[in-house]
Amino acid sequence: MKRIRGFASDNNAPVHPDIFRAMEQVNKGHVVGYGDDPYTVRATEKLSTLFGENAGVYFAFTGTATNVLGLSTALRSWESVICAETSHIHEDECGAPEKFTGGKLIPVEPVHGKLTPERISEHLYGFGFEHHSQPRIISFAQATETGTVYTLDEIREITGLAHKHGMVVHMDGARIANAAAYLNCTFREMVTDTGVDILSFGGTKNGMMYGEAVVILNPDLDKNFKYIRKQGMQLASKMRYIAAQFEAYLENDLWLKNARHANRMAQLLAKETSIIPGVTLVEEVQANGLFVKIPEKIIKPLQEEFFFYVMEGRNPLVRWMTSWDTTEKDIHDFSSLIKEMLT
Amino acid sequence: MKRIRGFASDNNAPVHPDIFRAMEQVNKGHVVGYGDDPYTVRATEKLSTLFGENAGVYFAFTGTATNVLGLSTALRSWESVICAETSHIHEDECGAPEKFTGGKLIPVEPVHGKLTPERISEHLYGFGFEHHSQPRIISFAQATETGTVYTLDEIREITGLAHKHGMVVHMDGARIANAAAYLNCTFREMVTDTGVDILSFGGTKNGMMYGEAVVILNPDLDKNFKYIRKQGMQLASKMRYIAAQFEAYLENDLWLKNARHANRMAQLLAKETSIIPGVTLVEEVQANGLFVKIPEKIIKPLQEEFFFYVMEGRNPLVRWMTSWDTTEKDIHDFSSLIKEMLT
Amino acid sequence: MKRIRGFASDNNAPVHPDIFRAMEQVNKGHVVGYGDDPYTVRATEKLSTLFGENAGVYFAFTGTATNVLGLSTALRSWESVICAETSHIHEDECGAPEKFTGGKLIPVEPVHGKLTPERISEHLYGFGFEHHSQPRIISFAQATETGTVYTLDEIREITGLAHKHGMVVHMDGARIANAAAYLNCTFREMVTDTGVDILSFGGTKNGMMYGEAVVILNPDLDKNFKYIRKQGMQLASKMRYIAAQFEAYLENDLWLKNARHANRMAQLLAKETSIIPGVTLVEEVQANGLFVKIPEKIIKPLQEEFFFYVMEGRNPLVRWMTSWDTTEKDIHDFSSLIKEMLT
Amino acid sequence: MKRIRGFASDNNAPVHPDIFRAMEQVNKGHVVGYGDDPYTVRATEKLSTLFGENAGVYFAFTGTATNVLGLSTALRSWESVICAETSHIHEDECGAPEKFTGGKLIPVEPVHGKLTPERISEHLYGFGFEHHSQPRIISFAQATETGTVYTLDEIREITGLAHKHGMVVHMDGARIANAAAYLNCTFREMVTDTGVDILSFGGTKNGMMYGEAVVILNPDLDKNFKYIRKQGMQLASKMRYIAAQFEAYLENDLWLKNARHANRMAQLLAKETSIIPGVTLVEEVQANGLFVKIPEKIIKPLQEEFFFYVMEGRNPLVRWMTSWDTTEKDIHDFSSLIKEMLT
Repeated sequence: MKRIRGFASDNNAPVHPDIFRAMEQVNKGHVVGYGDDPYTVRATEKLSTLFGENAGVYFAFTGTATNVLGLSTALRSWESVICAETSHIHEDECGAPEKFTGGKLIPVEPVHGKLTPERISEHLYGFGFEHHSQPRIISFAQATETGTVYTLDEIREITGLAHKHGMVVHMDGARIANAAAYLNCTFREMVTDTGVDILSFGGTKNGMMYGEAVVILNPDLDKNFKYIRKQGMQLASKMRYIAAQFEAYLENDLWLKNARHANRMAQLLAKETSIIPGVTLVEEVQANGLFVKIPEKIIKPLQEEFFFYVMEGRNPLVRWMTSWDTTEKDIHDFSSLIKEMLT
Repeated sequence: MKRIRGFASDNNAPVHPDIFRAMEQVNKGHVVGYGDDPYTVRATEKLSTLFGENAGVYFAFTGTATNVLGLSTALRSWESVICAETSHIHEDECGAPEKFTGGKLIPVEPVHGKLTPERISEHLYGFGFEHHSQPRIISFAQATETGTVYTLDEIREITGLAHKHGMVVHMDGARIANAAAYLNCTFREMVTDTGVDILSFGGTKNGMMYGEAVVILNPDLDKNFKYIRKQGMQLASKMRYIAAQFEAYLENDLWLKNARHANRMAQLLAKETSIIPGVTLVEEVQANGLFVKIPEKIIKPLQEEFFFYVMEGRNPLVRWMTSWDTTEKDIHDFSSLIKEMLT
Repeated sequence: MKRIRGFASDNNAPVHPDIFRAMEQVNKGHVVGYGDDPYTVRATEKLSTLFGENAGVYFAFTGTATNVLGLSTALRSWESVICAETSHIHEDECGAPEKFTGGKLIPVEPVHGKLTPERISEHLYGFGFEHHSQPRIISFAQATETGTVYTLDEIREITGLAHKHGMVVHMDGARIANAAAYLNCTFREMVTDTGVDILSFGGTKNGMMYGEAVVILNPDLDKNFKYIRKQGMQLASKMRYIAAQFEAYLENDLWLKNARHANRMAQLLAKETSIIPGVTLVEEVQANGLFVKIPEKIIKPLQEEFFFYVMEGRNPLVRWMTSWDTTEKDIHDFSSLIKEMLT
Repeated sequence: MKRIRGFASDNNAPVHPDIFRAMEQVNKGHVVGYGDDPYTVRATEKLSTLFGENAGVYFAFTGTATNVLGLSTALRSWESVICAETSHIHEDECGAPEKFTGGKLIPVEPVHGKLTPERISEHLYGFGFEHHSQPRIISFAQATETGTVYTLDEIREITGLAHKHGMVVHMDGARIANAAAYLNCTFREMVTDTGVDILSFGGTKNGMMYGEAVVILNPDLDKNFKYIRKQGMQLASKMRYIAAQFEAYLENDLWLKNARHANRMAQLLAKETSIIPGVTLVEEVQANGLFVKIPEKIIKPLQEEFFFYVMEGRNPLVRWMTSWDTTEKDIHDFSSLIKEMLT
């Protein structure tokens, strides 16, 4: 791409300077490895506090890892995970959940990127029947992979349904900050209070360098997680550098400031492009992503200026993501270019 | 159930007397274990010959095992299997394929129990893209789990599509005899000549005691299978007793005689019940199973006389299977009872 | 081999006629598949009763399977199994325990084929330390793979050590009948009363066709086993034929009669061959196997008459196994031949 | 600990300032994620060049991960890895190799921390025998886990033995820099030219923040690695920050400067402590670690001043590691304190 910034992914953005500075500040002297250092203790407590006292917090390197290990703590190999057909765990993790857990994923066609109780319920059968992989987890992404956000009531419907069947709920929070910013609620209100059992807390897409965490709200699922993380190859030796990122990220609501900005940029991009003839938004823009139909012929030339992805599969679409560092000028330049190409 | 025979499953039937006798005949003296005995050599050759000289033949205990191990010989953990939503490997093996291979299953809504090239093609993307589980196998059952049978042309369409994309094809032949009987063709014509790469050859549902085999038509997939079978806990020490069953089963076309009979009984049952008001066949009867809608209220009382299963899931149905030992009288008694209950 | 019987393995022997007859007797009419039939209920109770009321009994096809699935019910992937270097699970199952459980095996050099508390204890460390695979199971074979038998006190020492550390004990009973016959005790005294948690109960090597069972003595480990067996591809559809074997095997102490005979034949073989110059027994003969050093030059010619195996590895030995159908004449002929070759 | 620096592990040290600066320099603008950025291309080439043109280079987060994924690229589940009993893959990865590959580890008692051809050869049997997990990889650490270093001839003996048996060789290079510094040779001479097939290249213990790589020397093993890394949850989205670390690490031989310093500090520590009565070095000091017997009573008080680990297992020892930032004063203070405690 020619421009400094594109719309390919929020993970194409650099690290927020406050976070970088925090990493620099812990870069002195020896501390014990693998998380037994004071920085990690402090950052762990800080994140845990945002969810409630019993929340178990475990840092890791990647979002795929927090999803897979988060599922692992509740899933046995003879059990299954109900998830959206479009979910990251089903579409974009190269089968890591199946490989690591031995369990089954049951993909469900979503409505506006979301699971619904009706569609989930079609798969809630065969309990106690040994020929059938036992439904155990409902997993959904908040925000979803298509840029929509579950309301608190929608989440409660899912957790209620799960718990009624002795199942548990996993939330893929790769973009949890954007969802909380959109809903204007706290993490605790959105996750703990709605009854979510396991959370993949993502920070990398919102200004960190490599900062993800598994947050376990259900203490029954927290007994063996330290072994799962280590065996899952996700225990950092120099953990202090993840801890420092988290401290800065949670300090002064930096996470919220970044997410609000990205969301606002997405709204602006939606406003400026949706009025261009030939551009159709296929989902309401709620978090920081746009899913769009545009004429085939402008995709390549447009990508050469501002990089973005075409989502493969049954219904190809283009995706435009905004991030913590997107500028209003980026939006204007991009919109103008599209307008120019289409008129 | 009160009756000697029911319509629950072809595996509820006993062992054909010819097969039993053959097992008795090998029950003398010592032979080397684990298949290095003359009986196994002979039976292996006999089955191999029916498919063509290069066919690798490996006996095993269960149909689930031949499916899982058959898939294993071609599937790496980062690859996926496209199969029908109703397939045995997806619905009825408690997640064994995922557990044993670490790979992903992609369930597709079938048309009359069958995969179609159009629906398969919706999932043929992401080749070479490391985030996406790589499509590697198309797996289908012949006969299908809903009693229909793929034509030879339909099979060729699937194998053609697979091979064009560098993929391979697995056929779940738990009821392969019923399919061949219906199509009036040889195993070679139906499997080898259509380009199928791996076959689960089932005998247990058609008169054997425990007799299943993996038949590998594609020699590239045959290199490591002996380790896969042993590690898959499916290497019989006293292999001669499986071998004896296979010899008797293939002798004088016993397999065909049994399958033809079961199919004929299914046709008769269809004929006699489809004219009863309140009974609706939901699929054309081709092999030895009927999938039927009947009034809820007669299910329980009917099951008490003749046992059969209700198929759970999105669209509950009852399933009636005929077998090698079903009698015309069984059909008449059953049909009469239904008629009586509904009028 | 030229002779009707050899000394290769007790699994080279045929099926005992009483067992064959019992299988024939259940070969009539339909019964529900997968173990929900009256024969299986009866046989399960019969075996369970021999171990105590709470014993969970699950039939399966192979000894490798009962070992692997038995371990699976207690082992998580981050845990380890302490076992003898010579154990079947470590040496002869093609890595099935690791594949199926994801856990680690820790091989220990045995003393006379047996684990000792001292050697086990060298590996009892690192509890609670996430970098270290957590010691969870002590697994030993009774009789051992080298033909020796643990005394009841030796078993109690092992179970005591395990339970003290929160670990559990698995007994590989592929030759449990030979061990009980040698010790002249009941299964209950040898297994339940000594505190063993999980047992692989073997019948195939002592006159059955294919008859193995997992017996779970510790009810905490019995919750999910039905799923483990199904996902482990070991749930027989026509279960009645395994059940019939077990009934006959347990009826009138057939198991004991067979085992005593085989053990007696081993004693006789030891007596007749140990006095031949050039023949050295390396372990005391307690069950039905001899481990022997003989001159290299007679191995091949001797095998051509009576087949037997050479045990590979660090210290190559020959192994001679007797079985339920070994005759005194077999022993004399074999001994005479060796004598002839060596003088 | 009270001191700024201890001797617990080289991973307790901070990040070298040159490396930190390099990370800062790439922290601007958008680049494509997951390694398709110019920084990663450049760093990959730089590292690849040090090993030879055909070397495949893949960055990852942790040493455990590079070991496990490195083994995965050559190991099927029915195969085994011969390694030292003291090896990191066997002792310190919580069973991750078994979990992720399904294969078996065969631990061998080492001589001065090293595998020898004699001890390896004791396990080279059973090829082609399906009951036996097939020997496939010989894995050793350079430097070893006990601070010794294989000579180039010793490495060649191992690779020669492996290749003669159709096996491949994995080198765990968590401390490869210290080994190369000790041997005064290039990476190419030590790895590529000796015939090593797969290398885990470690940087974190020698001044990086999180910088590890799998280097595949044998192109046959390089076909599917990108899927293995992604499915192994080790594909970094913001890869540029690993790339930047590698560039700085390889620039101006920073790696060598750091390693030489750490090694020199270890020699100094050996010199100063070995003359204290009561202190016994159990291995010759070659890389940057000392393995030492000291009186039990001084362990706790000494740890409170300068933290270090006690190595559990059969023969407990204390381990003292030096690192890129250890000072001569640290050594003197530590030695003096020991002297004081023991006299």
